[in-house]
Amino acid sequence: MGARAEGEMLARTLCVSAPGKVILHGEHAVVHGKAALAVAVNLRTFLKMTPRNDGRVSVELPNIGTRLCWETAELQPLLVAFPAALTESLPPSPEQIEKLKEFAGLTDTTAATQSLATLAFLYLYLSIASKCGFLPSVAILVYSELPTGAGLGSSAAYSVCLAGALLSGCGVIGYPLEEGQAVGRWSEEELALINSWAFRGEQVIHGNPSGVDNAVGTRGGALRYQSGNICSLKSVPTLRILLTNTRVPRSTKVLVAGVKDKIMKFPAVMEPVLTSIDAISQECETVLEAMAERPSLEHYPVLEELVDINQHHLNVMGVGHSSLDKVCQVTASHGLHSKLTGAGGGGCAITLLRPDTAPSVVEAAIRDLGDCGFECWETDIGASGIRAHSLQSLKAEVLEAFGRM
Amino acid sequence: MGARAEGEMLARTLCVSAPGKVILHGEHAVVHGKAALAVAVNLRTFLKMTPRNDGRVSVELPNIGTRLCWETAELQPLLVAFPAALTESLPPSPEQIEKLKEFAGLTDTTAATQSLATLAFLYLYLSIASKCGFLPSVAILVYSELPTGAGLGSSAAYSVCLAGALLSGCGVIGYPLEEGQAVGRWSEEELALINSWAFRGEQVIHGNPSGVDNAVGTRGGALRYQSGNICSLKSVPTLRILLTNTRVPRSTKVLVAGVKDKIMKFPAVMEPVLTSIDAISQECETVLEAMAERPSLEHYPVLEELVDINQHHLNVMGVGHSSLDKVCQVTASHGLHSKLTGAGGGGCAITLLRPDTAPSVVEAAIRDLGDCGFECWETDIGASGIRAHSLQSLKAEVLEAFGRM
Repeated sequence: MGARAEGEMLARTLCVSAPGKVILHGEHAVVHGKAALAVAVNLRTFLKMTPRNDGRVSVELPNIGTRLCWETAELQPLLVAFPAALTESLPPSPEQIEKLKEFAGLTDTTAATQSLATLAFLYLYLSIASKCGFLPSVAILVYSELPTGAGLGSSAAYSVCLAGALLSGCGVIGYPLEEGQAVGRWSEEELALINSWAFRGEQVIHGNPSGVDNAVGTRGGALRYQSGNICSLKSVPTLRILLTNTRVPRSTKVLVAGVKDKIMKFPAVMEPVLTSIDAISQECETVLEAMAERPSLEHYPVLEELVDINQHHLNVMGVGHSSLDKVCQVTASHGLHSKLTGAGGGGCAITLLRPDTAPSVVEAAIRDLGDCGFECWETDIGASGIRAHSLQSLKAEVLEAFGRM
Repeated sequence: MGARAEGEMLARTLCVSAPGKVILHGEHAVVHGKAALAVAVNLRTFLKMTPRNDGRVSVELPNIGTRLCWETAELQPLLVAFPAALTESLPPSPEQIEKLKEFAGLTDTTAATQSLATLAFLYLYLSIASKCGFLPSVAILVYSELPTGAGLGSSAAYSVCLAGALLSGCGVIGYPLEEGQAVGRWSEEELALINSWAFRGEQVIHGNPSGVDNAVGTRGGALRYQSGNICSLKSVPTLRILLTNTRVPRSTKVLVAGVKDKIMKFPAVMEPVLTSIDAISQECETVLEAMAERPSLEHYPVLEELVDINQHHLNVMGVGHSSLDKVCQVTASHGLHSKLTGAGGGGCAITLLRPDTAPSVVEAAIRDLGDCGFECWETDIGASGIRAHSLQSLKAEVLEAFGRM
């Protein structure tokens, strides 16, 4: 990375990516004080930031059909509401959000996703600008492999990319890509800063997020979340999975309330189920760490059994759905093991693949899931967190998406 | 009932019936010290005992294709091995069983069911004859609505009927059917005696039975079994059910061992599941007693929810089967709730019906289950225990079966 004076804008194009997340075990139980295991899923959000020389700042978000562009001079008067000391120590205030909404002309008729993406950008841009003392004139392009609103942490991946790019671009942290390198990663300290700013972005979008999604997006791998504490697992293997979106819409709020009602109705029946799920997360964590240390096929049947058991438990909690049963049946017919991930009641499911699962089996399963009307990706969990990329090293699909913008 | 001198044979034809049993909740968990709820199912075994005047004793068991006939004089020498004091206080000894096998010419090539039914008859006949001092010359016909080997307590219903008929016939206990009555029931004290002899029959057949099946066959209703203790529920409602035999054969021993392995492998995951099942049995017992006291439709959704949860738990324990999943799916498509009953891995399932479930729904469910190749009965649980019947009061199907013999 080139040496820069403080307050100077990075003169080169900068490209970062961050992964999505899935809950491997512990969804819903986590609401009741049990552990959850969240893992990075290698469907990523890519962000390219290029210096402009026209005094403007632009953002293109083709996934959600959004293009934004302002003169930095227009933004200048807003800075007073974003003093650096404040934004670092306090969550976004209703007053700040109100100001940004007014500035961006967002009304209740603006689509929620577009509105929230705009607010998160403005919040992070102004806060970081305030910190480093200037409003950078940049063009930002964001392309994501993650569907939005599917519980896969797409908003966190977006916030992580924004935080990483803006902090690096403004020189608050370095940009870890030496000439000729394909990929670079930030230091622990820098990651902590990226994560804390990404969390602010998540607060703008979600109000009161757990911080799990941005932590996974920043650090990758896997983490345990329990009673507000987030703890990264030392080391985890990369595991092949199928990620299936049933496309059945659901309300997380309604599902969480249903589980609570069931626990209130049958406490003696339901509390042990939560205890069992907690033990599944613990057992899975132990197995993952053992796998990272000493990879062996013998761990897979254990992981599969835990997936099956937890799927039954989630059905007990009433967050199953016929579409999720279908995913389990279809994949079981190919010898594969699946569970819902996240809120349930539709939404997404994950299916474990072994390293030696034949491509023909995977293809057949994907085809059968597609025939059910589901969207299905073959990807990995335990993926890396935020990364800096050389443009040349990006896969064609991403380059093409960037080119189209 | 006529006054008889002690040691005198009842001169009239005598007819008794006893119900089968299903496990409502707690199968498998009961092996690990948790409670199980066993209920009488109104598929019954009927026994008719008629005095003969030719000095012979005969037994016809058309369900298992068995006809036995001996001279009572042939049996006389065996009595020395069945002293009344001994058989009342000790389980059948290997020597006694060996003697009976030899007498009846049973070899390892005799079908197990026939062999065991013959041994149980001879054991009870000789023990009770020894007690009352003579070998009654009677013709016994047994017809059962219960399939054998399906975990529905058919052997216990047989033993209960034999014990009730022989004890009454020999005058050890009364025969509770006054002239003109359709149905009669024995006193508590007499039931206790019938039960203890039926348990001996079960010991002949099963070696080390729990005593649950003969207790349900004798007393009917429902009982809780835990750690060797059997406790009848005060009062339970009669509930309509479908009983489905998937006809998938399974080994209870292998299934029980599988559960044990799984508990050993994941104790922290599996122990809470047993705890939850225990709570389901407790909750169900509470609901059943409330229903008996104050019948109301509002209890049914609770019973259904407990059935669904337990079915998931049994799947967690690895004793599910695709045929049982099919029963659940098919009945769910008619708005009905099912779980496996007994060992699982195939075998039988029960489906709750509400009092107001329309006949068209029941017929459609039975038809669909039949289309899957399953055998399906509409019957009741919480049925009465052993009963004496007038021949005229028997339903046509039973009379016809008796007539055919």
